[in-house]
Amino acid sequence: MATARLLLLTVAAAVAGSCFCSGQEAKPPPYCGSVRTAVEAHNIIGWKTFTADCAKYIADYMTGDRYTRDADVVINEAIAYAESLKLSGSGKEIWVFDVDETALSTLPYQANRGYGVQPYDQASFIQYVTEGSAPALQGTLRLYQRLLQLGIKPVFLTDRTEDQRTVTTNNLLSQGYCSWEKLLLKPVELQTSTQAFKIEERKKLVDAGYVIVGNIGDQWTDILGSPEGCRTFKYPNPMYYVA
Amino acid sequence: MATARLLLLTVAAAVAGSCFCSGQEAKPPPYCGSVRTAVEAHNIIGWKTFTADCAKYIADYMTGDRYTRDADVVINEAIAYAESLKLSGSGKEIWVFDVDETALSTLPYQANRGYGVQPYDQASFIQYVTEGSAPALQGTLRLYQRLLQLGIKPVFLTDRTEDQRTVTTNNLLSQGYCSWEKLLLKPVELQTSTQAFKIEERKKLVDAGYVIVGNIGDQWTDILGSPEGCRTFKYPNPMYYVA
Repeated sequence: MATARLLLLTVAAAVAGSCFCSGQEAKPPPYCGSVRTAVEAHNIIGWKTFTADCAKYIADYMTGDRYTRDADVVINEAIAYAESLKLSGSGKEIWVFDVDETALSTLPYQANRGYGVQPYDQASFIQYVTEGSAPALQGTLRLYQRLLQLGIKPVFLTDRTEDQRTVTTNNLLSQGYCSWEKLLLKPVELQTSTQAFKIEERKKLVDAGYVIVGNIGDQWTDILGSPEGCRTFKYPNPMYYVA
Repeated sequence: MATARLLLLTVAAAVAGSCFCSGQEAKPPPYCGSVRTAVEAHNIIGWKTFTADCAKYIADYMTGDRYTRDADVVINEAIAYAESLKLSGSGKEIWVFDVDETALSTLPYQANRGYGVQPYDQASFIQYVTEGSAPALQGTLRLYQRLLQLGIKPVFLTDRTEDQRTVTTNNLLSQGYCSWEKLLLKPVELQTSTQAFKIEERKKLVDAGYVIVGNIGDQWTDILGSPEGCRTFKYPNPMYYVA
């Protein structure tokens, strides 16, 4: 991110001398979309916040048509893939879903925090989770419903912690996620990274005889690392990065 | 791709009844950018051509500012990463580069074939390679030059075949890629996929004591599969997919 940020600051300095007419909103710098693409394609990793220069761009993106379309294209592809599978009939085929920003939206929370331009604040995020009011991401719910029809069982795998099991269960149920094979939450005291935790849990699923036919998450750390699943899907999220 | 294509065709049908004024060019459908993002993020895989509905979009993208910016952001990030490394001094740190559409551009060829909207044609592509006139992708050349300064040795790993060694060598040299540790081409008779070939070659490099600090390619099949390298970079390419 260092050079990208440097580039952003350099360009910002270059336009600082321009005349912005009173009352006219400055256009976001043109590279904001390229940075977002680089985040989605796992080229920019380990970042803390999206650059402040792109605050308006990200807010417009997250609340506009493009984000919805980006998500719909991913979900359509996931459904087409699921429909193409020949299932074994064993009932052991599962699909792994991340929770926050994949099954459930964090947008009402992010809207008050600049859509990722402000740094992550654990206390206020836990407060949001605890309210249990997160709305479903409608595309993911559509994928979930189709998988149930097809006989592929959902497994939720999240870095929410065990003490959030009840609120998470109720939130998922209230939003239409009506059944699942497992809801796997992180032990409260676990010290490993989210990625290491998720890889370990997927290993346990495979060892128990499950076949992970699909795996969807908004973070690359949800879907990288063997066993990742037969096919993985990166749900769009330019707002935050989880290691 | 099936559902994405279905979506594209459905939307195309929905607008077919609209009036397009004579002489006014139809705007590309709005989902073309989302499909491109999904290709870059490895959500849409195994595709043969970009949908014809997006022909104008892809041509505009490949010849416009956005493609250059997308590439620059990736290259800037790769350079920042390389500059952050503490090298061992052993001279064994290498960076793996793909050739076509990473080190050398195929754009002069693609321009005559709808930038990927027409299906892949091996004979004409080999003809393009054989001419040896492919220009460098300037961002990649910039990364290459910085790596040489830093003491990281370039290795070219390509699915071009051994019988194309001389023309490839001359093309690379003529475009400013002036030295390399290895140029690894595919044996003419090899039957495995490009991905399997590249994984096997990276294994051999690691077994020979090299440390692959970076790996850049325009295809996900260049950069997925252990050992992939300490960090990987996906160079933008919505024009074709290699399995």
